[in-house]
Amino acid sequence: MAEHLLTLTTDFGTRSPFVAAMKGVILNINPAARILDLSHEIPPFDLRHAAFFLAEALPYFPPDTLHVVVVDPEVGSSRALLLVSVAGQRVLVPDNGCWTLLAERYPDSLTVLRVEQQRLFRPQISSTFHGRDILAPVAAYLSLGIPSSEVGPPTHTWRKLDWPTPVHAPDGVHGEIVFVDHFGNLISNIAGSLVSAGSWVGIGSPTAKPKPARLVRTYADASPGELVALVSSSGLLEVAIVQGNAAQQLGAGVGTPIHLG
Amino acid sequence: MAEHLLTLTTDFGTRSPFVAAMKGVILNINPAARILDLSHEIPPFDLRHAAFFLAEALPYFPPDTLHVVVVDPEVGSSRALLLVSVAGQRVLVPDNGCWTLLAERYPDSLTVLRVEQQRLFRPQISSTFHGRDILAPVAAYLSLGIPSSEVGPPTHTWRKLDWPTPVHAPDGVHGEIVFVDHFGNLISNIAGSLVSAGSWVGIGSPTAKPKPARLVRTYADASPGELVALVSSSGLLEVAIVQGNAAQQLGAGVGTPIHLG
Amino acid sequence: MAEHLLTLTTDFGTRSPFVAAMKGVILNINPAARILDLSHEIPPFDLRHAAFFLAEALPYFPPDTLHVVVVDPEVGSSRALLLVSVAGQRVLVPDNGCWTLLAERYPDSLTVLRVEQQRLFRPQISSTFHGRDILAPVAAYLSLGIPSSEVGPPTHTWRKLDWPTPVHAPDGVHGEIVFVDHFGNLISNIAGSLVSAGSWVGIGSPTAKPKPARLVRTYADASPGELVALVSSSGLLEVAIVQGNAAQQLGAGVGTPIHLG
Repeated sequence: MAEHLLTLTTDFGTRSPFVAAMKGVILNINPAARILDLSHEIPPFDLRHAAFFLAEALPYFPPDTLHVVVVDPEVGSSRALLLVSVAGQRVLVPDNGCWTLLAERYPDSLTVLRVEQQRLFRPQISSTFHGRDILAPVAAYLSLGIPSSEVGPPTHTWRKLDWPTPVHAPDGVHGEIVFVDHFGNLISNIAGSLVSAGSWVGIGSPTAKPKPARLVRTYADASPGELVALVSSSGLLEVAIVQGNAAQQLGAGVGTPIHLG
Repeated sequence: MAEHLLTLTTDFGTRSPFVAAMKGVILNINPAARILDLSHEIPPFDLRHAAFFLAEALPYFPPDTLHVVVVDPEVGSSRALLLVSVAGQRVLVPDNGCWTLLAERYPDSLTVLRVEQQRLFRPQISSTFHGRDILAPVAAYLSLGIPSSEVGPPTHTWRKLDWPTPVHAPDGVHGEIVFVDHFGNLISNIAGSLVSAGSWVGIGSPTAKPKPARLVRTYADASPGELVALVSSSGLLEVAIVQGNAAQQLGAGVGTPIHLG
Repeated sequence: MAEHLLTLTTDFGTRSPFVAAMKGVILNINPAARILDLSHEIPPFDLRHAAFFLAEALPYFPPDTLHVVVVDPEVGSSRALLLVSVAGQRVLVPDNGCWTLLAERYPDSLTVLRVEQQRLFRPQISSTFHGRDILAPVAAYLSLGIPSSEVGPPTHTWRKLDWPTPVHAPDGVHGEIVFVDHFGNLISNIAGSLVSAGSWVGIGSPTAKPKPARLVRTYADASPGELVALVSSSGLLEVAIVQGNAAQQLGAGVGTPIHLG
């Protein structure tokens, strides 16, 4: 376990002082904390974006790394705060389901605690910033080595994020785009393992004619500007425009249908 | 005190090599420096944005943490560079007033030094990048433990940033928006402590009819899309559109009038 | 040498999980690694932007600092991966030439190795994310102290990035803009040392009449809104609009001609 290490993932941006305030709270409790930014550019309130982000990034970390994840449209309501042990990682997160995609991929050894031990919170709790007032101090104490069990009792109920599953039909697999990366590449929910040499990939509306994307092994197998399909680095079927931005150029995004024939 | 720790806040962005150059200069002098990014997304030259950012973030840090803050439209002129002890923190900053809002909130124990000890600077000083050539090396030496007094003599004169104060009138308090956060929430200069159960909040032009915002305790007390007013996590009256972007949807921003009746 | 330190520079942004995945891989191999972000906002596939960034930032770092630089439009092709010792720094980078501008400025003591030791890679290598699968683990092992020579054999061939050189003519020097910074300042390829008291600077098309920019020492020597020319903090001729955005306001960018008369 990487001592004193904790990571931060939020939808706060860094124009605002919120991430900085959380860092201050953490260091005030554990001056030796090693704070690692994962992202503060999760789109505001976008739990599906956060879910994909966590599922793709967290499994690479050392066992038991502590991750603080704050995308929290329901802050101040009665929604719980959780400490989840999943995929060998520890995640401090509002009960919003953004970690359940990760749990589906790594179904073993899940434990979920409710964060309720107020002794670990800041003395004053605002109703709009639990990242600073609850999750940051709890993370700091955990990074000092207190046992996970001290944060609160186990729970067996939590929100589960809906995640679209592809439909297997006689004419192939019908999926949809679930993530658009920084390059505008369109990542689908269709497993790359379903792709074979003679496969056909079409992207776009199921009513209008879908646009065909040529299957390649990597971007460099096609010319700049070409629409291609490939197996992404996360093992999913992906559509890209070589050295271009497929999302912008196709007007596609999360939810756009994709067909593997 | 968190040893070797220093934070960076700039309006440089990270597309440009300026922040990276500062990090290099710091590590060259103190290879053990722990550099923590607070923000590089302060809008260019926006001293009021920086002032609010510092006032909201710095008080959470451990005592004596060193903060390097570079928003410097007058770089290369005769404006001074300062080492300010304020709110229990140390701030290395051009003399542009962006720290004086913080000082107003924490008026005790202010000391201000002029950064003049050239022995601590880089040998060549450019006329457009004192962050790299002066503030970064001075910060690095301070992070190594040299006494603050070595940077230069005390001063009792500095720029003070104008900050709008609300007007108390028979019909209530007339304030204005002083900060727009990453979510488009509109934070005003009206103290949340002035809000009571029967209060009325209006946002917008004082000539046209102001738009009413329903008072709630937290975002989750209203429906997505609703215009609400609440006490922000910094204790100020705030106007928001639940899970929306109030700044964009209202065409509001810094300076927009707000009325608490 | 700063122990366990390594820096990251990519065109990945932080909306996507790619940078976070690289950080996880690094920490899994070296839990004591000190990971410093330089930038993840290199414009996608923009090798010239990366080249300027590296040339301006890396020389400030402590000797032998390890820099991982991933701008990799040809990922998955047969292009090599390199460990370059240049300007006293170590750079892990795809063979795309983005480090050769740095090498031109610091021509001494260049050594280039091909990264080929598969024992240092992740067991599964994707065809689209060598940053995570090859460069991150190799960087982690280097940060643990393995000798550079273990990554692979020396090479004497690599891609060289074209970089425009100014033309010296009877009427002065004709150069072009090579970098636009976060403020919209336009940095040219004309050495500041060529500027003298009576120089004349014009920016814009060589066919239409170029716009004159008044020579100043620093931004604060002119009024907000004025078009000025000055020697940048990197020693190059720069054109700026004081407290404005010259790139936007002039419609200028990389490749725009500039004339020093």
